[in-house]
Amino acid sequence: MSASVSPDWIAVDWGTTNLRAFAMQGGTVVDQAQSDQGMGGLTTDGFEPALRALISPWIAAGNLPVIACGMVGSRQGWVEAAYRAVPCTPLDTVLTRAPASGGLAVHVVSGLSQAAPPDVMRGEETQIAGFLQLNPGWDGVICLPGTHTKWAHLSAGEVVSFQTVMTGELFALLGQSSVLRHSLDPDGWHDAAFAEAVGDTMAHPERLAARLFGLRAGQLLQSTDGAIARARLSGLLIGSELAATKAYWLGQNLAILGTGAQARAYRDALALQGAHAIPADTDRATLAGLTAARRLLREAT
Amino acid sequence: MSASVSPDWIAVDWGTTNLRAFAMQGGTVVDQAQSDQGMGGLTTDGFEPALRALISPWIAAGNLPVIACGMVGSRQGWVEAAYRAVPCTPLDTVLTRAPASGGLAVHVVSGLSQAAPPDVMRGEETQIAGFLQLNPGWDGVICLPGTHTKWAHLSAGEVVSFQTVMTGELFALLGQSSVLRHSLDPDGWHDAAFAEAVGDTMAHPERLAARLFGLRAGQLLQSTDGAIARARLSGLLIGSELAATKAYWLGQNLAILGTGAQARAYRDALALQGAHAIPADTDRATLAGLTAARRLLREAT
Repeated sequence: MSASVSPDWIAVDWGTTNLRAFAMQGGTVVDQAQSDQGMGGLTTDGFEPALRALISPWIAAGNLPVIACGMVGSRQGWVEAAYRAVPCTPLDTVLTRAPASGGLAVHVVSGLSQAAPPDVMRGEETQIAGFLQLNPGWDGVICLPGTHTKWAHLSAGEVVSFQTVMTGELFALLGQSSVLRHSLDPDGWHDAAFAEAVGDTMAHPERLAARLFGLRAGQLLQSTDGAIARARLSGLLIGSELAATKAYWLGQNLAILGTGAQARAYRDALALQGAHAIPADTDRATLAGLTAARRLLREAT
Repeated sequence: MSASVSPDWIAVDWGTTNLRAFAMQGGTVVDQAQSDQGMGGLTTDGFEPALRALISPWIAAGNLPVIACGMVGSRQGWVEAAYRAVPCTPLDTVLTRAPASGGLAVHVVSGLSQAAPPDVMRGEETQIAGFLQLNPGWDGVICLPGTHTKWAHLSAGEVVSFQTVMTGELFALLGQSSVLRHSLDPDGWHDAAFAEAVGDTMAHPERLAARLFGLRAGQLLQSTDGAIARARLSGLLIGSELAATKAYWLGQNLAILGTGAQARAYRDALALQGAHAIPADTDRATLAGLTAARRLLREAT
């Protein structure tokens, strides 16, 4: 951290498996640090030490306000930040204070809930808020690929409805823990096999259950390449997701918030259906969202 | 083992996780033994000791022929017993001899394969043969629920085609290893929730991907009972399987080979669709199948 640039607050993205902290001056990152002390591996007493281990250099001269989003606000987290029910803006002026010692003020962003069909998100609301900061006035549907991919319908600055699909977790479980693991290349890819599988599942979503074991049998009987099998599994699952979420993306203004292979797979699958999504960067959106949360908090207090 | 009843051969059911051996006199079990030395935990050198540990009392006075079915005949098993391609009878006169010492003759039953769509079975062919022994002349479709459920179309004593669905493995992975594990009772059940979920997925199989996370959200937001959530997950997955295998069961003469809760769930789900399956016992079928394999072997040699 440069001595000439002093942070005035700290942004924290605290998920199940990772903790990332950013020393901020206004909307600008002046330093950052991260650890693997995600919420999933911590008990109540572990949160404050885990955070202080990262931010202590930044608060040596005095406390700075901390704004945190993600699973840190779940019932098993540091403090439960109650869900806010949609339709609502992605962020509120009220944050939940976590119990920290020595006057350290840690404010946790609430997740969103939906009564019917029942659904929840925690962390993505901050990314959505950041996306809206970076794209003022944007209306449409935003897809946030992940372990649990979220689809959110945004209108006039509010989240109107949303839908979670466990495609990322299913892909990991089937690819790493099921009998299919013997037939999949851990990293390979094959565009045509992916496209064919997406098309098959979109056209016949009722056949999904019968298609999965074929990946194993195809390798045993026809020595199907593991990269092809992996791309097919991804295509079957993403195709199934697109069949289930058609109301979210068909004929909508679309954005995909994510980078890397998973986001590209979603973009390709949607493009195969004639739906073209604009890409957006997750880290930028998260920081813009936490910055917006801090501004709302200051305006309210 | 009663001294007055001497076995004349040994039947072995050797799967991925278990090994079961039966001292047989003709078609009658005179003694039995089992261990957890399934094929999945053994290397090539481990098979003979694992088998001898169970059968040594029975062969103290002299070797007896051993007939084995299941994953012991896979490429990673004791000896690879090449797949036979359908359409064919479930059993053949030719078995594959495993490399055992001291003149012990271990004959392994072949699995079945299907070229298109690619599929394989290993072990179930013996159960199907046994079912046909116990129900001579039976034509129709037999469902064998399991980790990988099999549906087989039988006609004139042959397996015409078959289909594997990974429902059992998916249910275990989602129920025990995914985020849903927090919301499911490990043993509970709820008939009405199961029936509703089967009906939902049958009517709208394209919605499956969007329904799974709702089990978690329903528990977080509405404190849905874990037994209800577990029955719903089973219903969603079995409903998805029935949607995918409709050609196998709609308007067919049906049998379910299996006992216990899983077989009952399949029978209930089919009955909800107006399809009534006769139940059949797996252990009886396995022993009848191995007995038929032994008879075929003796006739051929």
